[in-house]
Amino acid sequence: MRTQVAIVGAGPAGLLLSHLLWMEGIDSIVLENRSRDYVEKRVRAGVCEDPTVKLLREVGLAERLDVEGMPHRGIVLRFDGEDHRIALTDLTGRTITVYGQQEIVKDLIAARLKADAQIHFEVSDVELHDVTGDKPRVTYMDSDGVAHEIQADVIAGCDGFHGISRPSVPDSDLTVYDHVYPFAWLGVLVEAPPANDELIYANHENGFALHSMRTPEVTRLYLQVDPADSLDRWSDARIWDELQTRFAIDGFALHEGPILERLLSPMRSFVVEPMRYGRLFLAGDSAHIVPPTGAKGMNLAVHDVLVLSRALKALLSEGNSDLVDSYSDTCLRRVWRAEQFSYFMTTMLHRDNHADAFQHRLRLAQLRYTASSSAAATSLAENYVGLPFP
Amino acid sequence: MRTQVAIVGAGPAGLLLSHLLWMEGIDSIVLENRSRDYVEKRVRAGVCEDPTVKLLREVGLAERLDVEGMPHRGIVLRFDGEDHRIALTDLTGRTITVYGQQEIVKDLIAARLKADAQIHFEVSDVELHDVTGDKPRVTYMDSDGVAHEIQADVIAGCDGFHGISRPSVPDSDLTVYDHVYPFAWLGVLVEAPPANDELIYANHENGFALHSMRTPEVTRLYLQVDPADSLDRWSDARIWDELQTRFAIDGFALHEGPILERLLSPMRSFVVEPMRYGRLFLAGDSAHIVPPTGAKGMNLAVHDVLVLSRALKALLSEGNSDLVDSYSDTCLRRVWRAEQFSYFMTTMLHRDNHADAFQHRLRLAQLRYTASSSAAATSLAENYVGLPFP
Repeated sequence: MRTQVAIVGAGPAGLLLSHLLWMEGIDSIVLENRSRDYVEKRVRAGVCEDPTVKLLREVGLAERLDVEGMPHRGIVLRFDGEDHRIALTDLTGRTITVYGQQEIVKDLIAARLKADAQIHFEVSDVELHDVTGDKPRVTYMDSDGVAHEIQADVIAGCDGFHGISRPSVPDSDLTVYDHVYPFAWLGVLVEAPPANDELIYANHENGFALHSMRTPEVTRLYLQVDPADSLDRWSDARIWDELQTRFAIDGFALHEGPILERLLSPMRSFVVEPMRYGRLFLAGDSAHIVPPTGAKGMNLAVHDVLVLSRALKALLSEGNSDLVDSYSDTCLRRVWRAEQFSYFMTTMLHRDNHADAFQHRLRLAQLRYTASSSAAATSLAENYVGLPFP
Repeated sequence: MRTQVAIVGAGPAGLLLSHLLWMEGIDSIVLENRSRDYVEKRVRAGVCEDPTVKLLREVGLAERLDVEGMPHRGIVLRFDGEDHRIALTDLTGRTITVYGQQEIVKDLIAARLKADAQIHFEVSDVELHDVTGDKPRVTYMDSDGVAHEIQADVIAGCDGFHGISRPSVPDSDLTVYDHVYPFAWLGVLVEAPPANDELIYANHENGFALHSMRTPEVTRLYLQVDPADSLDRWSDARIWDELQTRFAIDGFALHEGPILERLLSPMRSFVVEPMRYGRLFLAGDSAHIVPPTGAKGMNLAVHDVLVLSRALKALLSEGNSDLVDSYSDTCLRRVWRAEQFSYFMTTMLHRDNHADAFQHRLRLAQLRYTASSSAAATSLAENYVGLPFP
């Protein structure tokens, strides 16, 4: 087989890249080792930045998002027994939209298949070849165990943190920046209406907790736990008890309900530089990970593939390599901004049991200041809603 | 002897408190273990916040400051080979004023002596007694070795970090918050005109450097060094070499000249709570220390004694103890704000050799953001010029 862009991974990054390239008249093939059903149900990110929503709208992908997505005009910081609202929209003129990553994936797959795109699910043994030459290839086995080879002009590695694209680059050609936080999140999906219209970021001496939502009927709740903790130590009763404790303020009650899903996720920051190796371009989680506190992961992936689609158009349609040459630097500026914001949100809101009493006081002072200064609140808000795309 | 307020320490805090009390018709005696000449030449802080200048003006202490002080409308962050100006005045409508702490001390001593105040210099063996009762006393030896006792209504401990006031409080009655930074400053006073009208905070891979000034003819320069370093390892030639390296950008040259003074100061954050023990009130450095990066130390002392003077007026003239009861909490809110700001400035600008590559990148991202976002720059600026006094 031959295509212009071989895309590894059918998450939001790979699928959106395929869609954006198609709009520019560039042909691609998407390979995914999971099933269509799996990726359409994989619950991950849930907060779309303003520029993400605007882009999806511009490229015809927001029909359902505009109906089912929940625009939010603020978030709540809960500490010291009080709520302090960061009025995102008043401060920045923009909103965020709560709409699950898996819904975006469903919309993207539907749009791509409607355009007769080639998305191959349940493939295996994906390998990249000759990426430093001008005729890179991808080999894989299809779901029936038949071997294939794709000849492409370039390869896009959109297969996430655990994918095969990044490890296909020699270690000596990548600089790795890695930071593991002493926190993990125990997340639960609950069949009960959210207790608040907006996200609540709660700082409690027992640890951080987050109140979010998936739909008007499904609440998403998170508890900071130790990274060495395990799900089997958390009964439903213990989860609810701890959630009620951390969210407790006068006049507020969480709505309890059946727990539909639970997961434990560690918190990590990870960046590789550069995001390009020959004719292989890394995008999204394959190149960088943020802790979820700033809600930046999927939005960074969207930015990466927007920049990449423009660069590939210039390269493949106009023979101009300027934009592919600047691809990595352009993306990394936003990546590091998001890493710093995510670190700021994470360290300010979590309880670090390794920190001394001075640092606990400092964090409380920072929360108070962020909630009381218009400049500080605007700084948080402009990062949260997302700095404009280029 | 009998007075209403016995003040230990003739630095900016003790002297200004004495002045503010005098304006309210409250009598005080100031004790100082150093000579008048020593305190009038002790070079320490040099940046007055906007509310500090306004207060000094209101209470008739700014005549010389208004002539000799240098109002600044911005500061420069130098990193990545470029200058990024934080336009303090455009962002906040306020300015800072460069005017040495020792000049304020001279002005205060002159004003106090003109009003026939009692300031006893070169005293020794100062001890506080009965501070938990309603008749506290201070004993000391005068410069001739004669023992004295002062009976007072209250005692103000304004004798700095190494003074005797804080240690007079039982350990069990104070909570200590302490943080030692892995940095020290090597500061030099140079007989040469400043090379720039505004302060330059330079972030260099060798470490932080600060360009400041004392007068239009005297430059003040600082180098980040290891806390274990010593002055005798820094020849003039090595100091200039390192300063030129860290400040180097196109079109800029430091003005070299004779080094008049040099000092090595460690960087520490320190807070005790509460700032009151019975009838002893701690103010300024006796209760809290900040690293110098945010230029907050003297300004916090000024705020403390403003709050204390109002509280003591209410107590001693009106018999109302509400303000003395809230004194500590009122001051500590500003103290923790300043601690957090000083920590932010210090960690963002210094090179921490214990930090990993991820954290170095994060700091650079934070600098770039602070210099490029109006909200982030305003947040820095409003802290730097000083949040309004109550």
